[in-house]
Amino acid sequence: MIDEESRTTVLRRAATYQPPRSWRTWLLGRPLPTADAPHQTIGKKVGLAVFASDALSSTAYATQEMLVVLAGAGAAAFVFSFPISIAIVILLAIVTISYEQTIHAYPNGGGSYIVSYDNLGRTPAMVAGAALLTDYILTVAVSISSGVAQITSAFPDLFPWRVVIAVGLVLFVMVVNLRGVKESGSLFAIPTYFFVVMMFITVGVGLARYLAGTLGVVTDPPEIEMIHEAQAVTFFLLLKAFSSGTSALTGVEAISNGIPAFKEPKSHNAGITLIWMSSILGVLLLTITFLSQQIGAVPSVMETVFSQLARTVYNGTGIMYLLMIAATTVILIMATNTSFADFPRLSALLAGDGFLPRYLAFRGSRLVFSRGIIFLALVAIVLIILFRASVTALIPLYAIGVFLSFTLSQAGMALRWWKTGKVMRGEQVDELHAHATPLHADERWRLKMIVNAVGAFLTSIVALVFAVTKFRDGAWIVLILIPAIVFTFNTIHRHYQGLAKSLSLDSYAAPPGIMRKRVVVPVSGVHQGTLHALRFARSLSNDITAVHVSVDPEQTERVRQKWELWGEGVRLVILDSPFRLLHEPLMDYIASVAEHRQPNEVITVVVPEFVPEHWWQNLLHTQAALTLRFAFRSMPDVVIMDVPYQVSHNNHPQKVST
Amino acid sequence: MIDEESRTTVLRRAATYQPPRSWRTWLLGRPLPTADAPHQTIGKKVGLAVFASDALSSTAYATQEMLVVLAGAGAAAFVFSFPISIAIVILLAIVTISYEQTIHAYPNGGGSYIVSYDNLGRTPAMVAGAALLTDYILTVAVSISSGVAQITSAFPDLFPWRVVIAVGLVLFVMVVNLRGVKESGSLFAIPTYFFVVMMFITVGVGLARYLAGTLGVVTDPPEIEMIHEAQAVTFFLLLKAFSSGTSALTGVEAISNGIPAFKEPKSHNAGITLIWMSSILGVLLLTITFLSQQIGAVPSVMETVFSQLARTVYNGTGIMYLLMIAATTVILIMATNTSFADFPRLSALLAGDGFLPRYLAFRGSRLVFSRGIIFLALVAIVLIILFRASVTALIPLYAIGVFLSFTLSQAGMALRWWKTGKVMRGEQVDELHAHATPLHADERWRLKMIVNAVGAFLTSIVALVFAVTKFRDGAWIVLILIPAIVFTFNTIHRHYQGLAKSLSLDSYAAPPGIMRKRVVVPVSGVHQGTLHALRFARSLSNDITAVHVSVDPEQTERVRQKWELWGEGVRLVILDSPFRLLHEPLMDYIASVAEHRQPNEVITVVVPEFVPEHWWQNLLHTQAALTLRFAFRSMPDVVIMDVPYQVSHNNHPQKVST
Repeated sequence: MIDEESRTTVLRRAATYQPPRSWRTWLLGRPLPTADAPHQTIGKKVGLAVFASDALSSTAYATQEMLVVLAGAGAAAFVFSFPISIAIVILLAIVTISYEQTIHAYPNGGGSYIVSYDNLGRTPAMVAGAALLTDYILTVAVSISSGVAQITSAFPDLFPWRVVIAVGLVLFVMVVNLRGVKESGSLFAIPTYFFVVMMFITVGVGLARYLAGTLGVVTDPPEIEMIHEAQAVTFFLLLKAFSSGTSALTGVEAISNGIPAFKEPKSHNAGITLIWMSSILGVLLLTITFLSQQIGAVPSVMETVFSQLARTVYNGTGIMYLLMIAATTVILIMATNTSFADFPRLSALLAGDGFLPRYLAFRGSRLVFSRGIIFLALVAIVLIILFRASVTALIPLYAIGVFLSFTLSQAGMALRWWKTGKVMRGEQVDELHAHATPLHADERWRLKMIVNAVGAFLTSIVALVFAVTKFRDGAWIVLILIPAIVFTFNTIHRHYQGLAKSLSLDSYAAPPGIMRKRVVVPVSGVHQGTLHALRFARSLSNDITAVHVSVDPEQTERVRQKWELWGEGVRLVILDSPFRLLHEPLMDYIASVAEHRQPNEVITVVVPEFVPEHWWQNLLHTQAALTLRFAFRSMPDVVIMDVPYQVSHNNHPQKVST
Repeated sequence: MIDEESRTTVLRRAATYQPPRSWRTWLLGRPLPTADAPHQTIGKKVGLAVFASDALSSTAYATQEMLVVLAGAGAAAFVFSFPISIAIVILLAIVTISYEQTIHAYPNGGGSYIVSYDNLGRTPAMVAGAALLTDYILTVAVSISSGVAQITSAFPDLFPWRVVIAVGLVLFVMVVNLRGVKESGSLFAIPTYFFVVMMFITVGVGLARYLAGTLGVVTDPPEIEMIHEAQAVTFFLLLKAFSSGTSALTGVEAISNGIPAFKEPKSHNAGITLIWMSSILGVLLLTITFLSQQIGAVPSVMETVFSQLARTVYNGTGIMYLLMIAATTVILIMATNTSFADFPRLSALLAGDGFLPRYLAFRGSRLVFSRGIIFLALVAIVLIILFRASVTALIPLYAIGVFLSFTLSQAGMALRWWKTGKVMRGEQVDELHAHATPLHADERWRLKMIVNAVGAFLTSIVALVFAVTKFRDGAWIVLILIPAIVFTFNTIHRHYQGLAKSLSLDSYAAPPGIMRKRVVVPVSGVHQGTLHALRFARSLSNDITAVHVSVDPEQTERVRQKWELWGEGVRLVILDSPFRLLHEPLMDYIASVAEHRQPNEVITVVVPEFVPEHWWQNLLHTQAALTLRFAFRSMPDVVIMDVPYQVSHNNHPQKVST
């Protein structure tokens, strides 16, 4: 029963609407009410499992990508891989300390976008946002491609199907995320710790056998792929290998986004988890690189370096080898989950700030940002298809964005400490924007400022080295893409600002009421549908004009005769159309009527519209109402009234069901 | 100036509307007024040029397709090609005499569809229509593919590009036909007569050299393609070769469609032209097959049999060879023109009779049936891509339709003569349908009936032989497709009949006027656009309900507060939406309001709709108006009023430009 017939101003109704069950329910689960949003928090051990998969999984490809570059100077150059990985681990340590400080300053989550917006302003924030979005997409493409490379290393017969498998895996992760992943520990803890344990066993056994002198070299190594003649080992080549190796650092920032998920004291727990994670990452990177070099592993598209290492350590492709490869594959697929959680969350944040379409800020039926998840999956699939699921081909696009966002985040933090110092000295500082996290006094602001500044400086150098050494291999794409995304953010932002201004009621004076209403009814033939529309037109105004566009003289004559009989005296205008166009003369006529109208006169175009019983029958009719609707959108005070006319062969259509 | 303000009933306005120039004008030429439709007629010589290209061009592939089948029993079986072509020429003679009679009985054009509809009824007419549409498409695919095969025979380097070239040629012919081809003689006469003259020179020189004993055999023949082990020469194989050869008869019916284009006496001139055409076709088929066998030509995908023949006759690939190949290529491309003229014409005929969407009966800006032309081109392109532009792969789909339509046409004629006889004896016959061509007395009706009956019998046998022998090679596709098309025709026809019945004013009693109008205004936020819509709503009724779907409590509270201030006392209903759905609760609400309304009460949903300045800005807004519009289409007496609100950053939007 409807009970708001009384003239109260505001009525609130509990929605009785229940979404119907459909194929979506089956695939994605039943819709969740807003009240069901999860509030549980996690400890350090589970936190490591949830947030570390992205960072740790990169050990599966970082060493190989260094070797791919060094192979340009022949296999002898592989000796440089260990010193380079030491440099990478030093960089990792600095980035970790730097992020540790961010975590304590931003207990509610301090992603690069938020820190940049708070401390550096809108443009750096847009750059950070663009860099992060790019990198989330690349994380999905690279991790899945690397996961598939592990599978095809163990089962070479699957190699021709690698693109199909990769696309299938992306779709699988997409569906899982559309259902909504409860970051609830066990789901993540088991595979992550399984991977970490397997990794330590593998490198442990490997080191033990190395010290005992029984490790040997890889048997049947794949053929080394030399594209060019072996070149000399140049400084440029070493920098390029270093750049490829820095892909190991991707994912380190994940914890700083996820602080609110931790148990109290949040920042403390998150910080310790970060240090655990970086330590494991550093140890694994060093040992894997060292062992890979000792066994003479060779980078190849057919078998990953990591597979060669595991095969050599375990003397063949036995059960331990398969367990190690399985653990690696699973963690690589799980690594994409971080992107699937953060990409839509960042998109929603950007949408809320007016840099992306606002509807991206709405949660879908399962409380996740469905549109962002689907968009991420589709773009990653396109990348995987374009780059044939090759990690080596994707790597040059990767990591620039990561290091750009590292740089902005840490530069923002350095500036923040400097402002903290000013505030503590009682000096005036520029106000932060409305939603910014407030500054807190900190005695050690000078030291912290130096740490973040050094971090910002080093990561900016890495970003620059990466851009220069990888420019021709694909980094140029990212260097065009990020400014293009920033430009898009800016354009959207200006649109929303202009819109808000022009919709604002601040200086709004209500216009006078509508004085005259003129109604135009297009008539192609005289039948029940036309008379149905005419009935509506008559309820609107007495000033009605029926308009018929004449293409066929016989048809026009029929319309004219029938109108005399059925037209209820409403005037009929016949427009000759020598070029057999139907809509254009009508629109031209209405435009000329609109041009000569009086102030506060409104033109209503009443369009009869067939609604057939079955959807396919729409194909048998031109959608005149839709065409007219779009044609008149830009004319002020011309409104379109769709009068649907349900054609049914059983019921008499003009009856109202009561 | 608008001058129909006075209350006269009917006003006729000369359309001032001139279509604007655009890229379409450049590509297709300026629009033509209806009055420009051509009325010129053509004589026998030009008529031959216009209508013969389809039939004559099939000599370029008919012999080859016979040899392809015979190759199944080894090269020795090629001796059967000449006897088979004699059988085909006999069939050609019978079909020609049979059509000669049709031409005299149907001076206004007697295509298979018209003759079937007139004499056999609706279902046979639908079958004939389906068969003809299928064959027009295949004619385009086969002729273009064969034309490209001639080109790649002369220039083997182009072979890998054959699909691209074929698609390009179809698009070229499509654009030419969209511009509108004036079947004006010289354009057609030059290449057709050039082809005929070149053909007679080639077979003439070939026969002379054969008689002089200097013809020799083809040098460097392409390798013979044997898919299976050579099998024995069976009767089935000979029938199959015969079926392939009957593709030479495609296009013979073209003149019977085009009789109105001839000079008076139309039927007489058209009939003589038909006999000329068939004679040339028969002579060429026999001589080409004979000579191909003598020189030991071999069917191959790399070089056409016809190219091998021309190369042998002219002792190499000199100027005469190139001229012959060029003439053949050009006539094969021109052959598709018959399809491009007849397919849209038949579609329009079928649309006029209610078997296809009615809008197919409208002529486009250049007076041609543009939609039919584009559809034909697209389907032919799909076929060419699917079958890799291979004539041999397409042939099994071809010719069934042709012979099916031959059979129906001649069976219809036979029945017609029988009725003529009855009428002449003064007996009663079933009335023909409304538009049918009237019967004329003819003393020789018995003889003519026998001729048509024999023709119908023989062509039905050929259609059957074709279906059986080619079934597995692809004929099954057509045997599924034609019934499917007939089913579609029938479904569409029933829809239009039902529609006409339910729209009919014959037993129409005007319903009472609209008594109550209830207005619903969806409100997502309170701003100028909302108030603009409210202003329209107020002009419609006093019974207005604003409805807000609550997803975010803060936003809802803002809406509530602003509505108190700006809502002009209109009641506001707030719908809680725990599943964060926007449209569904609103639609559910309106449906429940509609359910409880009184008779003759109409619900108008006034939907404010943003119209941004630039089209791309639409991507930033959900198209709520469009979604609601489709959702309410099926509800009786619920109308949707789109109130476009033009957002402009410069002009104040609610002002009416006067």
